[in-house]
Amino acid sequence: MLKILITTVPFGDKNRRPLELLENSSVNFLINPLNKKLTEDELSEMVSDVDIIIAGTEPITRKVMENAPKLKMISRVGIGLDSVDLLEARRRGIIVSYTPDAPTPAVSELTIGLMLSLLRSVQVSNIEMHNGRWYRFFGRRLSEVTIGIIGVGRIGLGVLKHLQGFGPLKILLNDVTPNFKSALDGNIEWTDKDTIYRQADIITIHTPLTVKTKNMIKKEQLLSMKKDSVIINTARGGIINEKDLYNVMKAGHLGGAAIDVFDFEPYIGKLREIQRCILTAHMGSMSVDCRTRMEIEATEEVVRFLTNQPLEGEAPEEEYTVQKEGL
Amino acid sequence: MLKILITTVPFGDKNRRPLELLENSSVNFLINPLNKKLTEDELSEMVSDVDIIIAGTEPITRKVMENAPKLKMISRVGIGLDSVDLLEARRRGIIVSYTPDAPTPAVSELTIGLMLSLLRSVQVSNIEMHNGRWYRFFGRRLSEVTIGIIGVGRIGLGVLKHLQGFGPLKILLNDVTPNFKSALDGNIEWTDKDTIYRQADIITIHTPLTVKTKNMIKKEQLLSMKKDSVIINTARGGIINEKDLYNVMKAGHLGGAAIDVFDFEPYIGKLREIQRCILTAHMGSMSVDCRTRMEIEATEEVVRFLTNQPLEGEAPEEEYTVQKEGL
Repeated sequence: MLKILITTVPFGDKNRRPLELLENSSVNFLINPLNKKLTEDELSEMVSDVDIIIAGTEPITRKVMENAPKLKMISRVGIGLDSVDLLEARRRGIIVSYTPDAPTPAVSELTIGLMLSLLRSVQVSNIEMHNGRWYRFFGRRLSEVTIGIIGVGRIGLGVLKHLQGFGPLKILLNDVTPNFKSALDGNIEWTDKDTIYRQADIITIHTPLTVKTKNMIKKEQLLSMKKDSVIINTARGGIINEKDLYNVMKAGHLGGAAIDVFDFEPYIGKLREIQRCILTAHMGSMSVDCRTRMEIEATEEVVRFLTNQPLEGEAPEEEYTVQKEGL
Repeated sequence: MLKILITTVPFGDKNRRPLELLENSSVNFLINPLNKKLTEDELSEMVSDVDIIIAGTEPITRKVMENAPKLKMISRVGIGLDSVDLLEARRRGIIVSYTPDAPTPAVSELTIGLMLSLLRSVQVSNIEMHNGRWYRFFGRRLSEVTIGIIGVGRIGLGVLKHLQGFGPLKILLNDVTPNFKSALDGNIEWTDKDTIYRQADIITIHTPLTVKTKNMIKKEQLLSMKKDSVIINTARGGIINEKDLYNVMKAGHLGGAAIDVFDFEPYIGKLREIQRCILTAHMGSMSVDCRTRMEIEATEEVVRFLTNQPLEGEAPEEEYTVQKEGL
């Protein structure tokens, strides 16, 4: 009987459908017993007899694959293939699928919430109030500021869509492949990243993690941002250099930040010292509907694989190219 | 020389224009030296020689007016006249003006931010993360829930407008005078308040504080709400009974709350014990643009009064009727 390891947690928690799909498929399956994001070593120790991984964002590296001689398929729950060594998988004939559309609505909606919280210092007032200190923080509205979106794919476009109900806004966009001229009311322009760093009051990142975006925003970029600007990362840990973000904010630069994704998760780093930095536990895609859709789609893809049906979510060739160019 | 007391703080902080208007008007003016919302007693002690009050939300009662024999005008910075005894003011020939439109955009935008934070447990994850605890909270998206808006005036309509960019949503509306049949995509209905309490997953209050809305939401109403629903009050303290809200949440009912306005401000009450209750310091209107507009409009009204020009923001007759019916 084939053995499936489900590394992403929670799984099947709010909706049992993905578990039922597996139960009906005559396979053995095991949900990550450590109940947290696995390290390369932890995963390597669990995969010796595994045929299929239903995966989160843990590193599925050459080392992991070397320890998984039976591995035939990796079905990623979500978007982002930075965690999978695609070229090594291809060399070994391991199929990789993902669910790139499912997380979009949840991540883009959370991003708007983080923008509005940051602009109004809700996170700071909330902590101060709980500690018995009353202070009326001044804030700004979306139409008072310039919004910069770096990465205008599925999620960046979702963010743009949600912003429509907030009136004409000044928005700067950047993407490696600008895919439309303009789409909304207001003052929307494509520009380079340096212009966004210098001019935007809110910067939100929606790029994949690649060799090119790893450490894209370091000390230099952070210091080129306005002193009272805010930055949001709901994309991937490592795109903003965490240590530089800490040092820059500790020194008083930036009005706030909202960080949902980290170099190492679960996160226990120094940004915890910064009160005006909102920290959340990689919850971008954690709405019941999106999470359920991700889990079901990833499991359905496994069922298709098991029953020799055509796959629907195979990683596209561009993802391999991105990793090849990075090497 | 006429004497003006400015009770609302901050004032002229981000934009000096209201101060300049007063400086050019040959008046004496004093900004609230206690730098906090005044009690009835504190205000009574400050008004013996005051001709005009540029007012916040502190109580301007019969007692205050008895101590202010020279008082000729009250110019409220903002919306809501619950704090002013309008009938007593009229008996004494004191003119009352306000700036009902200026706070709208800031309050409605903050409300959306609070909705999204509550739906995704951002406030809880943020505190947990700062304390070194990683837990991926499940949340819901706006399109997964039913939204109830009680009070569909300026601010309620602003909230509706912002919700447009989040796709077709199920929204229940209640107002004493329903003023349109439907306005948006999706599934929007007028209904009674009890239906909203029972069916909505998010309830947001945008009514004035009147005898009829004071304690409108008590233990009974709170307990009729769904166990995991959330409630937002950016309107006025006292509309939701604070003590009942505390008791009900302490006992585990409601998924969250966001309270920006309190019976007594600065707030130091027991809701501080409830981690899933977002507390902010009456910051609904505190965006730089709206606050500035409120202060300038209220001051311009004073200048019009001083120079015998027609007033533009006098309290409408309905506001007197509301207070008369309540008595």
